[in-house]
Amino acid sequence: MKAILIRDGKLVWEDAPIPELRDGEVLVKVRATAINRADLSQRSGRYPPPPGASEILGLECSGVIEKVGPGVSNRQVGQEVCALLAGGGYAEYAAVPAGHTLPPPAGMDLETAAGVVEVFATAWLNLRLEGELKDGERVLVHAGASGVGTACIQLCKAWGNPIFVTVGDQAKREYCEQLGASASANRHDPWDEAVRGWGGADVILDPVGGSYLEMNVNLLKPRGRLVNIGLMGGAQGTLPMGVMMVKRLCLRGSVLRSRSIEEKNQIIAGLQREVWPLLESGQIKPIIDKVFAIQDAEQAHELVGSNNTIGKVLLRV
Amino acid sequence: MKAILIRDGKLVWEDAPIPELRDGEVLVKVRATAINRADLSQRSGRYPPPPGASEILGLECSGVIEKVGPGVSNRQVGQEVCALLAGGGYAEYAAVPAGHTLPPPAGMDLETAAGVVEVFATAWLNLRLEGELKDGERVLVHAGASGVGTACIQLCKAWGNPIFVTVGDQAKREYCEQLGASASANRHDPWDEAVRGWGGADVILDPVGGSYLEMNVNLLKPRGRLVNIGLMGGAQGTLPMGVMMVKRLCLRGSVLRSRSIEEKNQIIAGLQREVWPLLESGQIKPIIDKVFAIQDAEQAHELVGSNNTIGKVLLRV
Repeated sequence: MKAILIRDGKLVWEDAPIPELRDGEVLVKVRATAINRADLSQRSGRYPPPPGASEILGLECSGVIEKVGPGVSNRQVGQEVCALLAGGGYAEYAAVPAGHTLPPPAGMDLETAAGVVEVFATAWLNLRLEGELKDGERVLVHAGASGVGTACIQLCKAWGNPIFVTVGDQAKREYCEQLGASASANRHDPWDEAVRGWGGADVILDPVGGSYLEMNVNLLKPRGRLVNIGLMGGAQGTLPMGVMMVKRLCLRGSVLRSRSIEEKNQIIAGLQREVWPLLESGQIKPIIDKVFAIQDAEQAHELVGSNNTIGKVLLRV
Repeated sequence: MKAILIRDGKLVWEDAPIPELRDGEVLVKVRATAINRADLSQRSGRYPPPPGASEILGLECSGVIEKVGPGVSNRQVGQEVCALLAGGGYAEYAAVPAGHTLPPPAGMDLETAAGVVEVFATAWLNLRLEGELKDGERVLVHAGASGVGTACIQLCKAWGNPIFVTVGDQAKREYCEQLGASASANRHDPWDEAVRGWGGADVILDPVGGSYLEMNVNLLKPRGRLVNIGLMGGAQGTLPMGVMMVKRLCLRGSVLRSRSIEEKNQIIAGLQREVWPLLESGQIKPIIDKVFAIQDAEQAHELVGSNNTIGKVLLRV
C-alpha cells in the first residue's frame, strides 16, 4: 500500500507494508483521515507513538472494512466506518480494534466522517468523564476554534451548559459565538478578566498548559475542575496551591491515545450513545475547514500549523 | 463559661458567652479538645474561621451533651460524644450540629476520644473519598508522625495498603514503622529517591504543598492522585504538566472545615461505618502525645509548633 512517511523531515507518499491484523482488529480501506495537532508533535519527535502502535501518522480515519480479524463479530467486510486510531491513518489501509470503529452517523458522508471521532471523543471524554460536567455548569475552553473547541461549543450548547472560549482573532470569536459559544475573548487581550467578568468556570478544558495554569486555577469556581489536554503554552506552570486547596479544585491530565483498548471501547460506546444522536438529528455537526489530497499532506500540515483554521483539516485518500 | 481567647497574641482562659444553639445543634459540655495545626494558623491570622463559625479555636472535642437544640432527634442530654467542630472547642461549652457528633468508640475513655475525630476524618476522607484509594494501591504520606499521619499509617495497615511516610527524624521513622508504615524516610535526606526506590505511589496525602509539588507529581504512578491538605512548604509550586498529562494524574485540594453541614454529616457517617469498628476492635488506636490542662494551651501550642510530637496533643477542660 501507499502511506505518508517522514523522509528528511518531509511528508512523502511512499510504499509501506499493509498492517497485519491482531485479534479483535479490522482492516479499514481508508477513504479519508484527519490532521490532529498531535500529528505535528509526533512528526517533530515530541510525541512518539505508544508501544505497539503504527509509526505512521494519523489518529482517525473513515473508510470501508476490507478484512476482519480473529474474534471480531460485530463488524463485517464492506461496512462503512469511522475509527479512532492509535496511529496509521495517513495510509491506504489501517488496522484498528473493532470496538474503536463506529458506523458514520446516519446521513453523514464517509469523507466527512473522518473528522468526527477524535474531536468529539476528546470533547465528550474530557468534559463529561474527566471534567464531570453537570447540568448548568459553566465551561471555559481554550483554542475554541480548533476541532476540539468547536466540538465543545456544540456539545455545551446542546447540553445547555454556558461556554466561554478563547481564540486567536476576531473572526474566530464571531464564528464561535455564532456556533453557540455564550461568550469569547481574543487570547491576545486580557482574556482572564473577561472570563472573570463572565462569572468564572466550573470546568476548564485546556490545551495550553504551563502559561495558562495560574490563570485557569484562579478562574475556577469552588470545586471546579481543570482538564489539561495539551502543552502548547509550555510543560511547566506555577500552581497556586492555596487557591486549589481553599476552592477544593481538581486538576487532571488527560490523553486519549495511550489509553487501553478497553478504555477506548468505552469511550467509543459513550460517543455512540450520547453524541451520535446529536449528529444524526443535525443538532451538532462536524466543522471541516479544508480537505486536501493526502499527497498534499505537507501543505495541510502547514495550514494547521499556521493556526488559521476553524475546525478540522482532512486528507482524502 | 470560660474559653481560651487570644489577648495580645497570647492564649488566655477568660469569660466568654455560652454559644447559642441553632436548629439541629447540640451543646456539648467539653471534657477535652485537641490541637490541630490549623489552630496555629488561625491564631496567627492566616486561617480565619469560615462564616458562621465560632471565633474560638478548636476543631474537635469530646464531652457530654448538655442541651439539645430544635430538630435534633438522635442525640439526648447526658450522652457522651466526640465531635467535629468548625471552631469553638477550646471552651467549656461548644455548639455543634448533631450529625457531627458520634458516641466515642466502645471501650475508649471520653478524654482520649477528643483526639480521634479530626485526624481519622481527615485521613479517611482524603485517602478514600478524595484519593479514591483502592485495594492494594500504594500510599505516600508526608508528616507521617503527625496526628493525620499516624491515622493514615494505621488505616493503610488495616486495609492492606502499603504506605511510605516521610518524617523529621530517626525516632519518628522507627515509631512510624513500628505502627505499620511499610517504609519511611527522613525528610532531610533525599526522600524522593527513597520513594522512587520503593516503587512510587498511587495516592499521596500531602500537607506540605509548594516545595514538594514537583517531586510528588514525579513520584506518582500512572493515574495516581495527589491530595493536598496543607501548605507548610509554601502556597505556590512548580507543576510539571507534561508529567501530569502523560501519567493522567489527578491533583486535588482538600479542606474539611469549610465544607457544608451535609457534607460533614456524610463524612462523620462514613467514619462511624468504616473507622469506628477498627477502633473498637483495637486494630487501630488514637495516638496521643501529651495532655495539657486547657489553661496551659500556650505551652501546648509551643509543643505542637516545635514539631517534636508524635500524634495528638490534647487539652483537658
